[in-house]
Amino acid sequence: MDALKEQNQDAKLITGNRGVRLNNENLKRLTEDHLYHIALSNVQHDLGQLFGDVKFVCFGGQSSRMEKFASFISKELGLEDNGPPKNYAGNTDRYAVYKAGPVLSVSHGIGIPSLSIIFQEIVKLVYYAGCRDVTFFRIGTSGGLGLEPGTVVVSERVVNGALEPSYKMVVLGKTIDRPAVVDTTLVEDLANCSLNSDNFKTVKGTTLCADDFYEGQGRVDGAFCEHEDGEKFSWLRKLKDNGVTNMEMESLGFIAMCHRANIKGAVCCVTLLDRFEGDGLTTNRQLLSEWQTFPQIIVSRYIQQKLNESS
Amino acid sequence: MDALKEQNQDAKLITGNRGVRLNNENLKRLTEDHLYHIALSNVQHDLGQLFGDVKFVCFGGQSSRMEKFASFISKELGLEDNGPPKNYAGNTDRYAVYKAGPVLSVSHGIGIPSLSIIFQEIVKLVYYAGCRDVTFFRIGTSGGLGLEPGTVVVSERVVNGALEPSYKMVVLGKTIDRPAVVDTTLVEDLANCSLNSDNFKTVKGTTLCADDFYEGQGRVDGAFCEHEDGEKFSWLRKLKDNGVTNMEMESLGFIAMCHRANIKGAVCCVTLLDRFEGDGLTTNRQLLSEWQTFPQIIVSRYIQQKLNESS
Repeated sequence: MDALKEQNQDAKLITGNRGVRLNNENLKRLTEDHLYHIALSNVQHDLGQLFGDVKFVCFGGQSSRMEKFASFISKELGLEDNGPPKNYAGNTDRYAVYKAGPVLSVSHGIGIPSLSIIFQEIVKLVYYAGCRDVTFFRIGTSGGLGLEPGTVVVSERVVNGALEPSYKMVVLGKTIDRPAVVDTTLVEDLANCSLNSDNFKTVKGTTLCADDFYEGQGRVDGAFCEHEDGEKFSWLRKLKDNGVTNMEMESLGFIAMCHRANIKGAVCCVTLLDRFEGDGLTTNRQLLSEWQTFPQIIVSRYIQQKLNESS
Repeated sequence: MDALKEQNQDAKLITGNRGVRLNNENLKRLTEDHLYHIALSNVQHDLGQLFGDVKFVCFGGQSSRMEKFASFISKELGLEDNGPPKNYAGNTDRYAVYKAGPVLSVSHGIGIPSLSIIFQEIVKLVYYAGCRDVTFFRIGTSGGLGLEPGTVVVSERVVNGALEPSYKMVVLGKTIDRPAVVDTTLVEDLANCSLNSDNFKTVKGTTLCADDFYEGQGRVDGAFCEHEDGEKFSWLRKLKDNGVTNMEMESLGFIAMCHRANIKGAVCCVTLLDRFEGDGLTTNRQLLSEWQTFPQIIVSRYIQQKLNESS
């Protein structure tokens, strides 16, 4: 227990260039930290031995997609001989945590509340594991505004439904604002990973983060809807005039929490449809699956570039 | 297509005593409705044939738990001879939709945004399938306030972090309020399914719905925390003085959407810890799993009672 307390007390020393900032003095008093939703513990598992080499954490919605990404990045990094990436959260099915060398591939479910749990437990995991200079990515899907479906958007700004870059949450009955400050260097570096030879476009843009897929994104095809197509299109045009290129459901919390944790982070999503053309996802699932690899390709190039620089 | 349009135009006729209210005129214009997140369509699948006999939809967070519940209710209803319940959303891993006779057992992930998607697609599913008199339940887990862990709470009131029974969402840039009106008859009937011989208690109470597991529920053991134990306990005491018995992350959206859809619905959760005793879930997983069956037992009794009444 003493070693753990010492480790906790040394929180501020684990900084590197961009150290994980826990900013929670209360953790010093814990004799054991159960990362409940991924069924890992800083006492029952040797997190340093298991995860100490992690440099990149890639989050995405679905477990199956993040398993595929783990296999993809494993191959890209020449690690296939290690066998298929293992799911370290295999004792629970709430989230999946695959590892391929220095890369964790983590599912976050849908929406900021679901993301916020796994995000915090992963921040604690990389902290307890003693990781340094870790970079986080959200690799996801989104609805586009005036973009050809299958376009990759690197978010240079993330906003809520009122177009503010602010993640609001209620703590002890009071609403607090967490600013969603984007890491502009990382955004530029990621966007520069696009190649002229790619069979998809990569752009920078503003991402609107909604708390709902249907009404929250102005769709008219949910079970509930109190607005008409005309009002929807006026709103979509207003968004586009304000630089919004795509909409999804996690970017705001993701960027705000990265900023809060002093972790480099970026959001990179493919658009699955152009919302000016419709609301439903009618493209066949095979093509949708192929499109979902596009942001993975961009992030994989960034990871390989950084690993080459440091080797 | 004509049959579909007719079916859509007949929306208001599908009422029964408590018909599903779609309240979305826009759906009349769809030639096909892709229920994208469960990989079902009202044209490519015969939803009436597959799901027309559904009378109860039970939602819960984890897919594995909802698979177990489907097996449990299948056994309780004497349907084991039909084989293990099938997951009809098997073409996607975002959600699971198991069916056991007249009961659907559906996973909703974590948080209202995740719930809102599957809720709306299930409302459309039971509507397209022509189901009548459907009752929805959320069977979940929660943190308790001053209750013995393992107690079942039937929510007679659900509130947000500001203690208001109001689900706020942003639509087309404007915040709208959806009242979370509980069905008091269903609450009474559910609470009355408790037996003196049960090895757990069942109580009625107010459930606070938070958008986060850590700070949003006042925990001090997340990656981020800006308050102290003392402030937490003051807040917990204030909640208890206001009748709050437990906290979770979906009840508010669930009850508000049931009310909006004119569907009878109730929330029934077990408490996994007493928040006055701590924040971490330290009870062993086997006992936690056993506790998670308690609200399933209560809801199962209600379902059997209703099926017996109507047979």
